[in-house]
Amino acid sequence: MKVLLINGPNLKYLGKREPEIYGDSTFKEIEADLKDYTKSLGHQIESIVSNSEGEIVTAICEKEYDALVINPGAYTHYSIAIMDAMKYARGLGKFVAEVHLTNVFEREDFRHEMLTTKEADIVLMGGGVFSYFNAISTAAAFLDKNLF
Amino acid sequence: MKVLLINGPNLKYLGKREPEIYGDSTFKEIEADLKDYTKSLGHQIESIVSNSEGEIVTAICEKEYDALVINPGAYTHYSIAIMDAMKYARGLGKFVAEVHLTNVFEREDFRHEMLTTKEADIVLMGGGVFSYFNAISTAAAFLDKNLF
Amino acid sequence: MKVLLINGPNLKYLGKREPEIYGDSTFKEIEADLKDYTKSLGHQIESIVSNSEGEIVTAICEKEYDALVINPGAYTHYSIAIMDAMKYARGLGKFVAEVHLTNVFEREDFRHEMLTTKEADIVLMGGGVFSYFNAISTAAAFLDKNLF
Amino acid sequence: MKVLLINGPNLKYLGKREPEIYGDSTFKEIEADLKDYTKSLGHQIESIVSNSEGEIVTAICEKEYDALVINPGAYTHYSIAIMDAMKYARGLGKFVAEVHLTNVFEREDFRHEMLTTKEADIVLMGGGVFSYFNAISTAAAFLDKNLF
Amino acid sequence: MKVLLINGPNLKYLGKREPEIYGDSTFKEIEADLKDYTKSLGHQIESIVSNSEGEIVTAICEKEYDALVINPGAYTHYSIAIMDAMKYARGLGKFVAEVHLTNVFEREDFRHEMLTTKEADIVLMGGGVFSYFNAISTAAAFLDKNLF
Amino acid sequence: MKVLLINGPNLKYLGKREPEIYGDSTFKEIEADLKDYTKSLGHQIESIVSNSEGEIVTAICEKEYDALVINPGAYTHYSIAIMDAMKYARGLGKFVAEVHLTNVFEREDFRHEMLTTKEADIVLMGGGVFSYFNAISTAAAFLDKNLF
Amino acid sequence: MKVLLINGPNLKYLGKREPEIYGDSTFKEIEADLKDYTKSLGHQIESIVSNSEGEIVTAICEKEYDALVINPGAYTHYSIAIMDAMKYARGLGKFVAEVHLTNVFEREDFRHEMLTTKEADIVLMGGGVFSYFNAISTAAAFLDKNLF
Amino acid sequence: MKVLLINGPNLKYLGKREPEIYGDSTFKEIEADLKDYTKSLGHQIESIVSNSEGEIVTAICEKEYDALVINPGAYTHYSIAIMDAMKYARGLGKFVAEVHLTNVFEREDFRHEMLTTKEADIVLMGGGVFSYFNAISTAAAFLDKNLF
Amino acid sequence: MKVLLINGPNLKYLGKREPEIYGDSTFKEIEADLKDYTKSLGHQIESIVSNSEGEIVTAICEKEYDALVINPGAYTHYSIAIMDAMKYARGLGKFVAEVHLTNVFEREDFRHEMLTTKEADIVLMGGGVFSYFNAISTAAAFLDKNLF
Amino acid sequence: MKVLLINGPNLKYLGKREPEIYGDSTFKEIEADLKDYTKSLGHQIESIVSNSEGEIVTAICEKEYDALVINPGAYTHYSIAIMDAMKYARGLGKFVAEVHLTNVFEREDFRHEMLTTKEADIVLMGGGVFSYFNAISTAAAFLDKNLF
Amino acid sequence: MKVLLINGPNLKYLGKREPEIYGDSTFKEIEADLKDYTKSLGHQIESIVSNSEGEIVTAICEKEYDALVINPGAYTHYSIAIMDAMKYARGLGKFVAEVHLTNVFEREDFRHEMLTTKEADIVLMGGGVFSYFNAISTAAAFLDKNLF
Amino acid sequence: MKVLLINGPNLKYLGKREPEIYGDSTFKEIEADLKDYTKSLGHQIESIVSNSEGEIVTAICEKEYDALVINPGAYTHYSIAIMDAMKYARGLGKFVAEVHLTNVFEREDFRHEMLTTKEADIVLMGGGVFSYFNAISTAAAFLDKNLF
Repeated sequence: MKVLLINGPNLKYLGKREPEIYGDSTFKEIEADLKDYTKSLGHQIESIVSNSEGEIVTAICEKEYDALVINPGAYTHYSIAIMDAMKYARGLGKFVAEVHLTNVFEREDFRHEMLTTKEADIVLMGGGVFSYFNAISTAAAFLDKNLF
Repeated sequence: MKVLLINGPNLKYLGKREPEIYGDSTFKEIEADLKDYTKSLGHQIESIVSNSEGEIVTAICEKEYDALVINPGAYTHYSIAIMDAMKYARGLGKFVAEVHLTNVFEREDFRHEMLTTKEADIVLMGGGVFSYFNAISTAAAFLDKNLF
Repeated sequence: MKVLLINGPNLKYLGKREPEIYGDSTFKEIEADLKDYTKSLGHQIESIVSNSEGEIVTAICEKEYDALVINPGAYTHYSIAIMDAMKYARGLGKFVAEVHLTNVFEREDFRHEMLTTKEADIVLMGGGVFSYFNAISTAAAFLDKNLF
Repeated sequence: MKVLLINGPNLKYLGKREPEIYGDSTFKEIEADLKDYTKSLGHQIESIVSNSEGEIVTAICEKEYDALVINPGAYTHYSIAIMDAMKYARGLGKFVAEVHLTNVFEREDFRHEMLTTKEADIVLMGGGVFSYFNAISTAAAFLDKNLF
Repeated sequence: MKVLLINGPNLKYLGKREPEIYGDSTFKEIEADLKDYTKSLGHQIESIVSNSEGEIVTAICEKEYDALVINPGAYTHYSIAIMDAMKYARGLGKFVAEVHLTNVFEREDFRHEMLTTKEADIVLMGGGVFSYFNAISTAAAFLDKNLF
Repeated sequence: MKVLLINGPNLKYLGKREPEIYGDSTFKEIEADLKDYTKSLGHQIESIVSNSEGEIVTAICEKEYDALVINPGAYTHYSIAIMDAMKYARGLGKFVAEVHLTNVFEREDFRHEMLTTKEADIVLMGGGVFSYFNAISTAAAFLDKNLF
Repeated sequence: MKVLLINGPNLKYLGKREPEIYGDSTFKEIEADLKDYTKSLGHQIESIVSNSEGEIVTAICEKEYDALVINPGAYTHYSIAIMDAMKYARGLGKFVAEVHLTNVFEREDFRHEMLTTKEADIVLMGGGVFSYFNAISTAAAFLDKNLF
Repeated sequence: MKVLLINGPNLKYLGKREPEIYGDSTFKEIEADLKDYTKSLGHQIESIVSNSEGEIVTAICEKEYDALVINPGAYTHYSIAIMDAMKYARGLGKFVAEVHLTNVFEREDFRHEMLTTKEADIVLMGGGVFSYFNAISTAAAFLDKNLF
Repeated sequence: MKVLLINGPNLKYLGKREPEIYGDSTFKEIEADLKDYTKSLGHQIESIVSNSEGEIVTAICEKEYDALVINPGAYTHYSIAIMDAMKYARGLGKFVAEVHLTNVFEREDFRHEMLTTKEADIVLMGGGVFSYFNAISTAAAFLDKNLF
Repeated sequence: MKVLLINGPNLKYLGKREPEIYGDSTFKEIEADLKDYTKSLGHQIESIVSNSEGEIVTAICEKEYDALVINPGAYTHYSIAIMDAMKYARGLGKFVAEVHLTNVFEREDFRHEMLTTKEADIVLMGGGVFSYFNAISTAAAFLDKNLF
Repeated sequence: MKVLLINGPNLKYLGKREPEIYGDSTFKEIEADLKDYTKSLGHQIESIVSNSEGEIVTAICEKEYDALVINPGAYTHYSIAIMDAMKYARGLGKFVAEVHLTNVFEREDFRHEMLTTKEADIVLMGGGVFSYFNAISTAAAFLDKNLF
Repeated sequence: MKVLLINGPNLKYLGKREPEIYGDSTFKEIEADLKDYTKSLGHQIESIVSNSEGEIVTAICEKEYDALVINPGAYTHYSIAIMDAMKYARGLGKFVAEVHLTNVFEREDFRHEMLTTKEADIVLMGGGVFSYFNAISTAAAFLDKNLF
């Protein structure tokens, strides 16, 4: 079955942007590792990275997939449009996992308002790249009907 | 004269998305009905649907039209950019109607903050697709100088 | 079938009160036009105008009608009693349309809190007297089972 | 190395309390599964369950362990005392994972205020019992120096 | 060295949009004047204008430049994505100047919330086009190591 | 001695309005039962029901009675006028009991603001019609000098 | 010329209600004194006292008078309907004075929200009955064209 | 059948603590009276008094009983843990009555936030010890299937 | 007996500052008229005008007088120091009248917060210079023991 | 006479917990020093340290003592139960001193809400262990009737 | 070494102002006692009292001293200017103690906002004049390098 | 023509106060440079520095000048009195520039409330001393009628 991986604004520059916070693996390297890992679990993955809110909404609504793993980046805190798209996906029976590299509650107050999060089945924060692996393994368990 | 119809994020999937809330006519069907209706009133219509805030701003500012009928979807609640574009349109003497399929005041609290609405001449909510017809007939009355 | 038209505080003085905002048709003239229009759609209308919150609650709960078209005026913003009465009407299967002559979102902040609005099927704002006509045609479509 | 597992108020009744939300495995069964899983990763676990804020603070501060996996339950939202204890634990170099069975952002507004969460290295919500397994595997990766 | 000039939503229509507020020089004329002025200071400039939040994020993160002069327009008030991109730019040692044609504190309350501003080295508001010239001269002083 | 029973807006329709919430006894039946019960305690009762805030204020201030049992309905949440009248009654040594059929804290947030409640000696919520009986027995105990 | 004196809810009971706050002159005595005083200034007065918001709106909008002296009592704090009526009166060129027997800023916080006050030409608080005399003398000065 | 009576922090000192507010009957005397009264209604009661939030949660979740009468004292205002326990009890079909000796709305603002109250079937405030008797008689009516 | 008249920041420039709002009498002319008027009532007046918060506090606390008539200007909205000084004056039995030339409730929201006002016996707003005359006549009535 | 010293959650670990903030004396050493100091002033001290809110309430209400010196730690910010207990103690004529090792106003915003503090006679913050000595010397002065 | 003692607005009138709150020692007497006490500890003191925010800022920034003992009075709650000056003093290595005669948390809500307090090393409230002595002894301990 | 330069509280100590933030040029040196620069543009400057809010209000209102360059320091955030004075100056046709050495949006939240800023024609923040030069060049352009 298929996992759609979406990464939002500024995430494409991982490894270059604030490496002391986000680690120094580049986005390309991480993407490759996640593809391998998903394959090892018997599923496939499609990866999209975009700085554009509209493109992210379109991908969520128009791509074919069974589970969504999304890091909406800054859009988490104000994009009702992406939240609505995630609600649409869940309404179609898809599994939705939201990932954040850092624990946003350790950061500035304006990052504590979480909108897209209202429409996630699971949320994983703070484990760095490890959070993506946990999200994918949980999604795989869901797809394999081993979750709950 | 010409009406510009703009539909914002997630509206393209009408008929597929939460049909118990939004009805099961597809967006294509609705668009066709609205074209016919506008023509029957002696005017023409151009229809744009986009998930992108920037594209919506561009359409409002660069398209040629006499009246705007817009359903900004989720952007209603946070897009000052679209609000500014609507203000610009009104400053040029255009008529602006804002439409919502549902009565947003019956929904979650975060949907009660309405920003783009500040720059609409008329607002119609809750009548489903019927609201578009009401908006177009009011716009036509305006264009025919029969309003007020 | 029957439409109940209710106009709340200060609306009786239309034509005399701030005509640059509300137009110079008197309330009597508007009432007559709305009666004719409703009749032309094959329904009848009863019109009530009152400055009293209690009288409005009583009319909503005790009058016999199939659809309600109400402009609660200033009570929109604080009358939970009228909101509860509208909820009661809807619970009995009646159609409820709320009308405002102006787009209240273009006015003072304290008018952005909308309470009665939570219990309306449709909301029409900003089209002046035209909004009443739209509300009645939507109500008629509902009564004729042509809505949605 | 050693993991300390703490479950806060009302969690002891899992399987009996609102099973449609929390699943019907009993707390004892879950505890046993987590012990086996931790052992399979080459570490050991001590499990504490308490309805008392004071006992939870004492356990965090006085128990010997290398990583903490905690579900503070309702205390998440108001216990600055537990938050301070978690801060103390992190100050001593321990790894802290906070787990919630449900995605609290899908629930009532008063559960969106998250205090203890400010002092977690990672946060996992919404995966039901699966979240504990993810937390333990992440903690093990940390203890094995395989995290980040 | 190189200055990147970014203008956000609705700014492309300068000269046409509310000229009593923003003046009647067109965007093209202003852009040409700024190019000349930058050259006269011994530097070069690249000018980008976009209504799209995503395109602005991409430009900030992917273009090559030494100093950024940005008027984020309406995005100032809600785009955490652009704010994060500006933070990224500063982390790479670039100078960031934020410009507003008008003094936003003289305008509506919702424009007093300033997010992108948190990640600017300098802020200039209210001087109309003159603010761009001040921003460029300050950026030049920075590039020439004459600032502070 | 005499008890004054006041029921505010929408309460006259009990038995017809949302029976799944408020029960299906009609207001007339409840009123008759309360009269009998009060008589059985050796006191008499006068019952007033009104949708009008002004009439309720007038009744509280001008009727002769020793104890007041009032269900202010929706006015609970915003009528400072009724609150002031209740304060006046207490200042004259009368006992004031406020009754709500439902536990308002289980309902919408805007019903959690309780104004008239500030001027009640006792408050009873959530027991349906039973709450009136409890209020009357407490008032009787007060009148018989058996309370406290 | 003519002054309209309106007293709102609970004011009719002056002399009986909390005399340590409001003094022990009865409303009838005060009314008589104000009539004499107005006559001594060469004008006449009509006095209305009502507990009903709707009646107060009606009086403001339908009575004939040149200046209004109003103590809206508790309605000051929440009646947008009375505020709108006062705005209507001012739009017709009438002078509007708002009077409060006590300084409401020395009382509870919920009395510091003042709505009707936004539509008064002058406001007088805290002088007890003396405030009415001051209001009438100012109104007379206005009518005699001696004010400002 | 069995009633569980729980009294929270500081209530054990009744009769000694602020007797001008809470009366001078000691807790022991009140407890004895309530036992007799419950017995006279054909039911039995178990009484628990504790200053500890955790102990109260444990009692609600682990004791055997058919109806709960609880005065959570200060915990009313901030204990989500006790609220969750009360929700658990109701989920098992138990009747929950919340009692407060005083009308908390007459006291400080921070006591107006009521959390546990959201999970009570009935709420009784302000009648002093009498409120416990009313709560027990209502609980008995519920257990005897005479309520509603 | 003696009245102390204090005028706060920017009031010294009356007649020059925004004459369309404040009238075109200069401060000197107004001061002279108020002196004559006070003398005609059988009392004397001392007039102080200062832009300095500290000087106003000192005057209130150190001058000898029987009644204070103060227009605190902008300090009304934030000076707890002047409020404390006014409280001190009242504690010594002095009468305190607060005057504002305009009705501050017709102006910006930040002027609706009134701090010094909490410590005034009477408040007069909106009558322009007439408000000073009203304040002085009320103060005189107080000093002559004719008030209340 | 007798001083009761209570230290709340996490304070038992002084010397081990964040020594750069709280110093490196252990709790035992500090306790011993305070005992000696109190004895040197002619009084005796009993020291209690607890992580449990309920135990702290019990100690305040049930221990015998003449003055209370309490550092409620994190409970300062949310324990209405401890605040009520401190109020009870003061009602019995006891002296209450609240101590904080650090100046909480230099720390996070959520620590600026201070509840227990409302029921302290004196408050001392920021002097580290020195604050306890100051609190004890003030309490001794009170007990010796040398305070005020 | 030298202590600078600053007393803010209204404090000069101690002994005359609200003696039931602040005691009846005059400011002169207190000042003399504090001088003696400081001398007895081997240091000297300079005392300044001023109602002027500007003078207090100037004293903090321009006087020569080693430790500051300041009671900012009402300025505590809003003077960012004094807070900035205190920050400046601390930046130069000076010790800063803030004193309040009363426990401000027992007073009105607007006194719970504490700004200058953010820049104090220690804070002492509620002990009346005793608080100054405690502040001076702590300052002396700091100057003698006996603190911490 | 003449520029008035005003610097508010704590700015006189530039070079000594937090040099890592504000640079180490002394105020005297900066003042001299600004004088030279203004002269080079063909205008003259008068420089005032004061810690007193009242003195700043007086200078703005009583000095003779054509353009004002002001750094209100901490008063920016709460001085309605200075804001009113700046409004007065603008009403007389003067140009008003507000300068801040740092970008206040990068600092504490309480510095984001900007009051005086509402009455500035232009605002310049974050460029250190360079901001004064920019303000003066813009003011000169205004005086030379070269601005806009």
